[in-house]
Amino acid sequence: MDLKTKRGFASDNNAGVHPDILKEMQRVNEGHTVGYGADRYTREAEELFRIILGHETEIFFVFNGTAANVIGLTGIMRPWNSVIMASSAHIEQDECGAAEKFTGCKVLTVDTTDGKIDAGMISKHLHGIGFEHHSQPRVVSITQVTEMGTLYTPAEISELAEFVHKNDMLLHMDGARLANAAAALDVPFREFTSDAGVDLLSFGGTKNGLMYGEAICFLKPGLTDDFKYIRKQGMQLASKMRFISAQFIAYFRNDLWLRNAAHANSMADILAEKIIGIPGIALTQQVESNGVFVTIPHPVADKLREHYFFYPWNEASSEYRLMTSWDTRESDITGFTRLLEKLMAEFK
Amino acid sequence: MDLKTKRGFASDNNAGVHPDILKEMQRVNEGHTVGYGADRYTREAEELFRIILGHETEIFFVFNGTAANVIGLTGIMRPWNSVIMASSAHIEQDECGAAEKFTGCKVLTVDTTDGKIDAGMISKHLHGIGFEHHSQPRVVSITQVTEMGTLYTPAEISELAEFVHKNDMLLHMDGARLANAAAALDVPFREFTSDAGVDLLSFGGTKNGLMYGEAICFLKPGLTDDFKYIRKQGMQLASKMRFISAQFIAYFRNDLWLRNAAHANSMADILAEKIIGIPGIALTQQVESNGVFVTIPHPVADKLREHYFFYPWNEASSEYRLMTSWDTRESDITGFTRLLEKLMAEFK
Amino acid sequence: MDLKTKRGFASDNNAGVHPDILKEMQRVNEGHTVGYGADRYTREAEELFRIILGHETEIFFVFNGTAANVIGLTGIMRPWNSVIMASSAHIEQDECGAAEKFTGCKVLTVDTTDGKIDAGMISKHLHGIGFEHHSQPRVVSITQVTEMGTLYTPAEISELAEFVHKNDMLLHMDGARLANAAAALDVPFREFTSDAGVDLLSFGGTKNGLMYGEAICFLKPGLTDDFKYIRKQGMQLASKMRFISAQFIAYFRNDLWLRNAAHANSMADILAEKIIGIPGIALTQQVESNGVFVTIPHPVADKLREHYFFYPWNEASSEYRLMTSWDTRESDITGFTRLLEKLMAEFK
Amino acid sequence: MDLKTKRGFASDNNAGVHPDILKEMQRVNEGHTVGYGADRYTREAEELFRIILGHETEIFFVFNGTAANVIGLTGIMRPWNSVIMASSAHIEQDECGAAEKFTGCKVLTVDTTDGKIDAGMISKHLHGIGFEHHSQPRVVSITQVTEMGTLYTPAEISELAEFVHKNDMLLHMDGARLANAAAALDVPFREFTSDAGVDLLSFGGTKNGLMYGEAICFLKPGLTDDFKYIRKQGMQLASKMRFISAQFIAYFRNDLWLRNAAHANSMADILAEKIIGIPGIALTQQVESNGVFVTIPHPVADKLREHYFFYPWNEASSEYRLMTSWDTRESDITGFTRLLEKLMAEFK
Repeated sequence: MDLKTKRGFASDNNAGVHPDILKEMQRVNEGHTVGYGADRYTREAEELFRIILGHETEIFFVFNGTAANVIGLTGIMRPWNSVIMASSAHIEQDECGAAEKFTGCKVLTVDTTDGKIDAGMISKHLHGIGFEHHSQPRVVSITQVTEMGTLYTPAEISELAEFVHKNDMLLHMDGARLANAAAALDVPFREFTSDAGVDLLSFGGTKNGLMYGEAICFLKPGLTDDFKYIRKQGMQLASKMRFISAQFIAYFRNDLWLRNAAHANSMADILAEKIIGIPGIALTQQVESNGVFVTIPHPVADKLREHYFFYPWNEASSEYRLMTSWDTRESDITGFTRLLEKLMAEFK
Repeated sequence: MDLKTKRGFASDNNAGVHPDILKEMQRVNEGHTVGYGADRYTREAEELFRIILGHETEIFFVFNGTAANVIGLTGIMRPWNSVIMASSAHIEQDECGAAEKFTGCKVLTVDTTDGKIDAGMISKHLHGIGFEHHSQPRVVSITQVTEMGTLYTPAEISELAEFVHKNDMLLHMDGARLANAAAALDVPFREFTSDAGVDLLSFGGTKNGLMYGEAICFLKPGLTDDFKYIRKQGMQLASKMRFISAQFIAYFRNDLWLRNAAHANSMADILAEKIIGIPGIALTQQVESNGVFVTIPHPVADKLREHYFFYPWNEASSEYRLMTSWDTRESDITGFTRLLEKLMAEFK
Repeated sequence: MDLKTKRGFASDNNAGVHPDILKEMQRVNEGHTVGYGADRYTREAEELFRIILGHETEIFFVFNGTAANVIGLTGIMRPWNSVIMASSAHIEQDECGAAEKFTGCKVLTVDTTDGKIDAGMISKHLHGIGFEHHSQPRVVSITQVTEMGTLYTPAEISELAEFVHKNDMLLHMDGARLANAAAALDVPFREFTSDAGVDLLSFGGTKNGLMYGEAICFLKPGLTDDFKYIRKQGMQLASKMRFISAQFIAYFRNDLWLRNAAHANSMADILAEKIIGIPGIALTQQVESNGVFVTIPHPVADKLREHYFFYPWNEASSEYRLMTSWDTRESDITGFTRLLEKLMAEFK
Repeated sequence: MDLKTKRGFASDNNAGVHPDILKEMQRVNEGHTVGYGADRYTREAEELFRIILGHETEIFFVFNGTAANVIGLTGIMRPWNSVIMASSAHIEQDECGAAEKFTGCKVLTVDTTDGKIDAGMISKHLHGIGFEHHSQPRVVSITQVTEMGTLYTPAEISELAEFVHKNDMLLHMDGARLANAAAALDVPFREFTSDAGVDLLSFGGTKNGLMYGEAICFLKPGLTDDFKYIRKQGMQLASKMRFISAQFIAYFRNDLWLRNAAHANSMADILAEKIIGIPGIALTQQVESNGVFVTIPHPVADKLREHYFFYPWNEASSEYRLMTSWDTRESDITGFTRLLEKLMAEFK
């Protein structure tokens, strides 16, 4: 079997589209439908978002996660503002400077080992307020679940939001893996989003069974004016919008989003459990969602990667990232860990 | 029937996705596939582009047409350059200033009644060359077929390209309806693209049966460096790229793209023919592809629009735009023109 | 004498700095002074502006005219807005696309033979309002005196402002040669600025005896927030601001600005009068300030330019621009026109 | 005496303009001179730069230091690049995000206590090379002398440059206080600039007796194309350029720049020496140029600031910055330190 089509652990976006999603896309493919989001499927999808996030939420669909982050931030920042985030954040590391290019803003970072940030870390950037020489801090951006697979608790988010608002800033949440957080936390969804004080949310699903499309959610009224122009000028207004909306309709139906994510999370738990038992392999992060971060000796990893596709996270420290998906099977894990165990035994 | 799902003449992007396209998207949805375009479906789709455009063509998929235009232009312009186009061009009228925002460049326009431009019109903008106070003209952008449904002949494009190159500029073609041009011209495809001297091509399909996705095609080597960064920073790199690639694979298979377009074109011919016969209705543009531009008295148009969805083009001159699609049926046209005829009779 | 230091008619910015200006710069050069505009000279200069423009005016000094236009516009536009101006405007022709690059906005133009625009010309750009696909018109920009040396009357400006405001837009005036307008119109200054409905004013002086520095004037309260950050991020905040302020203090003292401009205007009148008398030379614009536009046969102009420095305006129509300055002397004009007369006689 | 005009220690740009500079500005103020830098004074000034920096140097004057940094960087970066610098750098802290806004690039920082950075610190940012998701490191920017008044030795710069070039990057030097470095190091100027491997230099003088104007110096051929357009579009092309050029002509004449700087440096030495002797006051940085960084108890500093103007550097650690200037007199220092000594005695 081609290594690249075998279910591996490279990324949850290497998995395909959940059949229910595809089916819904097919279902809406009948007759003509007005373009650019003025259609009934989009209205329906937006309504579903409002049910879980609150009825004042404003929703704007875009094509992908980078756009959700960058275009969303553009709605609440002016070019002389700065946004503070973990130095490991996707916006900082993996969006090729799109935030700076499109918003014109400054990205300030704080270092953190587990991908999570708190008020104490942020404080060092809160100076020069009102001083025109200094870019004005305006947004704090967190990722839930983080790039390291760790989770903010609702209390942590509330506390951070309070600090952020007290300092006249806004809180953005990059939710590329938001469903995994929702499934893992198992509390009412708003408890760690709207009700916790998050202002702007990038709500993704491509890593959890969708094909494309992401939702920018303004969780409070009055946060942005004229946002429709920002999205259009940002090249993110889909003409056949119904096919993004259909995906979210199916995503929310019967909690597909939570079921997919819960499955991926549980696969990560199993994977972690099996790995811990292998002598010489160590976890480097708490396993709280669908990511498992481990140190594997490079020679072993190299051989393993001939059979399973996955990526190094930190070459220097021999750390690798293993992501489980909505379609990961227990047999995939067994096959993987058995081979790893065997290779480790030979390695020593 | 809901007016908005009835097959009308509002826009060719109100039509759905051709079943063969959807089927191919389903077909590639098996197992894991590496993301961001490093997959075999994308290689296959790129190869198909090279077959029709030439083996030196570099292809970059993006999400939509605005992005294809703007990101593509960014690859061949620097911020102190200007791009010259018809004042009726989509980039000028319907992309909310995305070109200026993302490229930092100046858009210069020329007025034209049929959407087509030529060397004579452009000349007025070719001054101040080498003068640092003046934004330097670098690209001429044409739309094929134009926003008015008219066509450039291969000879017209060649002549324009020659003039453009002689003036040390490049020629961009916005091909949102490129298939309609290909079907209408019925010459080898390269004759009005690569071989005619076009440098950069936005190759669209969403108006001709695709769901989303557009191809930026650099038709000559050496036109752009580091373009992959421009696309990523432009928020246009799809993670599950295989679903864009699959669409183009199906699009080119058995000439689906040409068959769809030829059908839409022929429907426009029939529509035009029937309309010409109705007293009091006049065509305002040559019908050369799938667009029919007509003057209809506003009161008549208002009543007609209660039954068929279509847009005014120019309120002042009582001009309306009627677009046919890959799925337009002759019965749609008959129904429409009969009603129009009836309303006109009553109107007089 | 070096041709390039001889008083010619190339540009009013080729003239030097008026001695009173230099003297004042020297006067403020004592002791330490807090930087970036928090000094008493800057307060004094701002107060002088408020006296002539109204006490609600907000003033921000920048380095030059391009910055005054571009940074000022940034204060009242968002990137999805457009600004409408004459195609001959300095912003369009001579600022290398700075407006597009820094504001992210679209510049729309209208053609005009005398550099002046009116409501009728602008109307064609006022469509697509509220339509997210279309860049939203927000500002109309006029130049007083125009690039062709012509003048808007107070009534013309009032009428245009009324139209602009009725369409929910703002009126910007590029006043690179504002003093020449003030001197020529000879009405209270506010009559064609604040009271006429101008919202934003670029108030220049470098073409009228200053060394550098220009004032961005918001003529009404509430037009801009946080503008200090826009100026700083725009690289236009001078550290030793007192030396810009000092120039304006001297500029307004004893009406130096009006006296300089009146002199230049009167020199243009004399120049025009003498030129009209020369057979074969024709004026192409009304002489209303300090610019004289004439057609001169190219061979004659070439010879003339061996003795006097001046620029062609339109190569194709053999049109040349002659600018007089605060330091032009009648003898310069006599010398110039005598030579021109002689050359014309030989030419025929 | 007004506190704000008394010679204090707030900033070296609070000092005025050296009389020789002003005199030269007056000298060039005769007759007409072609604008925008095509004049003989500018040629002369450029030649003087080439004498000290090497004959291949390309020089472009701009208005101020922020522009020199930002416009210069724009010449050698593309928007998907990043520039690495100390988190204390002026570009990062005091230019209101101008670099991000104008270049579109990402600014990456490293923490350093003395303002100096080295290869070891930078390394953490050198990953993801060639990976389109990651902004590509392209420039390392250092400040000489640093914002903390410390100095890079020629050897340190050479070593850093070698590392930078080995990693296919370029080295930028922010020389807002370059003369102070030159005076302090007392080695041939090129030894820590051109010959040490610096590629791009922001050469300032406003903190050392100039009025305005800064030079962007490309120290090697081929670093930038079309830079004249970047400067103009960056709103930094002065019309009456001769008055910037004149300043530099006088600046280099008889080593005025070095004499001014040497004086300021020696005043800082004296200030530091006297301060060290005061019980309870501690230096926080090596005094290597014209800045003295000290901890002073806040209540004492508050009283002192009623008599002398100076700024806190770090409120939290009670650290203050004292800058000496080309016009600081020993009596200023004596007055200041006596008062400080007295206040400290009372404080205890």
